[in-house]
Amino acid sequence: MILDRNTIEFIELLSSKEPTPGGGGAAATVGALAAAMGLMVANLTTGKKKYEEVEHQVQEALHCLTREQKRLIELVDEDAKGFLPLAKAYKLPKNTKEEEKIKEEVMEEALFTASQAPLAIMASILKVMEQLKFLGENGSTLAISDAGVGALFAESAMKASSLNVFINTKMMKKEAVRKELNKQADQMIEKAQKLKEEIYGTVLKNLKGDQ
Amino acid sequence: MILDRNTIEFIELLSSKEPTPGGGGAAATVGALAAAMGLMVANLTTGKKKYEEVEHQVQEALHCLTREQKRLIELVDEDAKGFLPLAKAYKLPKNTKEEEKIKEEVMEEALFTASQAPLAIMASILKVMEQLKFLGENGSTLAISDAGVGALFAESAMKASSLNVFINTKMMKKEAVRKELNKQADQMIEKAQKLKEEIYGTVLKNLKGDQ
Repeated sequence: MILDRNTIEFIELLSSKEPTPGGGGAAATVGALAAAMGLMVANLTTGKKKYEEVEHQVQEALHCLTREQKRLIELVDEDAKGFLPLAKAYKLPKNTKEEEKIKEEVMEEALFTASQAPLAIMASILKVMEQLKFLGENGSTLAISDAGVGALFAESAMKASSLNVFINTKMMKKEAVRKELNKQADQMIEKAQKLKEEIYGTVLKNLKGDQ
Repeated sequence: MILDRNTIEFIELLSSKEPTPGGGGAAATVGALAAAMGLMVANLTTGKKKYEEVEHQVQEALHCLTREQKRLIELVDEDAKGFLPLAKAYKLPKNTKEEEKIKEEVMEEALFTASQAPLAIMASILKVMEQLKFLGENGSTLAISDAGVGALFAESAMKASSLNVFINTKMMKKEAVRKELNKQADQMIEKAQKLKEEIYGTVLKNLKGDQ
């Protein structure tokens, strides 16, 4: 597992010119950090008398965020794996018409494959953001900034992941497939942006008031 | 060093209710990941004939990003350390007028101390963003999405770090100090937002065109 290594080493590996882990894996990592911020808020809220009315939902949030965090950690590897067919396809020869045709077909499929992990990363982070919204509004006020931090990380990781969809769809020849994948990404981005503005807005108002 | 441990362990530690690492340390980590994306672009650009005209600046970018990444990794620890006086101050008694007065003074200084690492994190990430802008415009076109990913991470980490300034300044009694620290944070956020929009806008236009 890519994240099953020293953090400084992971950061150095990401900094190198090696193709993986790349932007997709980095986005899944930041998504896992967003989930961590939600879990921190939930862990500071659960079991407290002041928040007993929402204890059941806090438990649900803990469950959901733990699951999505685990999923995002796995998706760092899936994103790297999803890039392999594309790396192979790039190397195919196109000296003859026949080779050109084969390369185009293989590329098209590889581009589709490479865009699947980024889309799955986005779907997972969207679930994280829904929990962050609940926790920002109902979780421990001691951790209000942490819910905001989580929302900021999550939205940036969603948009980062969408760039890894678009860099693949850009090269696709089949317009219908390209449009469909871009639409999926755009719709999730729209939801994420709305959620981020709500959560970040609430937190900022709480911390800075009207000054 | 906090990041000198397994990444999954770090994510789990962040998810716990332990006060450190908290939002500030998480922001420095995402800042280091933003620097990693810049380094990836620079490493894919340096030494290439196509980009030899900008080789000198690419070398500068490599130097600057390496330095700021190292600094951000250190700042994860400095942020945790900066929180210690505040954790102590919270526990001071305030049973008498005298104790109350002492606690207020100690708290005021501890809140100032706790806001220094978040401000340093922001200053460091701003330098990372300036390099990302250069790399997004002049770096290898193969890595265009990575410059965008870096800009997204950087801006979210800057805003996340500012929340860790505001959560401290909110409790300050000295209005002049509060306003000054908030102003420093707001000015850096404004620059970061502008840089992010420029870099992300360029990348998105390049990847999606006008569709």
